[in-house]
Amino acid sequence: MIRIEHIGIAVANLKDSIELYEQLLNTPCYKTEVVESEHVSTAFFRVGDSKIELLEASDPESPIAKFIAKKGQGIHHIAYEVENIQAEMKRLEALGFELLNVSPKKGADNKLVCFLHPKTSGGVLVELCQEITDEA
Amino acid sequence: MIRIEHIGIAVANLKDSIELYEQLLNTPCYKTEVVESEHVSTAFFRVGDSKIELLEASDPESPIAKFIAKKGQGIHHIAYEVENIQAEMKRLEALGFELLNVSPKKGADNKLVCFLHPKTSGGVLVELCQEITDEA
Repeated sequence: MIRIEHIGIAVANLKDSIELYEQLLNTPCYKTEVVESEHVSTAFFRVGDSKIELLEASDPESPIAKFIAKKGQGIHHIAYEVENIQAEMKRLEALGFELLNVSPKKGADNKLVCFLHPKTSGGVLVELCQEITDEA
Repeated sequence: MIRIEHIGIAVANLKDSIELYEQLLNTPCYKTEVVESEHVSTAFFRVGDSKIELLEASDPESPIAKFIAKKGQGIHHIAYEVENIQAEMKRLEALGFELLNVSPKKGADNKLVCFLHPKTSGGVLVELCQEITDEA
């Protein structure tokens, strides 16, 4: 893994949480983005070489709505940047990690992503991500 | 906040989890440390400019034991590096964040630390940390 690309945090209300995180991190939200395929609205903050990604459910079927109903607001996932997502998926699957995506899919922030099931990664929802370039 | 210094992850068995994380992150654990004051045994991994810190309870009174009993294994806290922990504590307290420590205390990995109560930081246990130097 190259670095912690971002930490995804489930929030009940994006507008209120943007205000809270601008105070906490002492830095402005630099981007918001709706990811239709994931049923979420997102907001991003830079912290050093990493990001904080706030996630609000855009409808009741969103995984974020289910997460909040079960566990309340809080840390939802850790995303690691990888150099070659397909090679990394193959490496981890061979080691017994359960992939939640058969092939990389388009995520927020111009990334190809793949999630690992928390049951094989110590209770943590893990995201692998790779920046989409012309070559990818 | 300067950067994400580490993400703290609560684990049931440190030895097993070190093995799992060496596979997941594809990097060796470079340090283990017992923090008596927190009743935890810890293990560290480097990921880019940040670290993953695994936390195992060393007795049933440990906050980590209580966390796992309530929520299971998973992400426990996010630690942000700050330049001046006392100034940052003052800034955040004035904004309404609840500090769990009146003054910075000695944490793992040669750090002065202060925690923020999850109830004022959107359900996330936040740690502020500053490297201990001769001047600090």
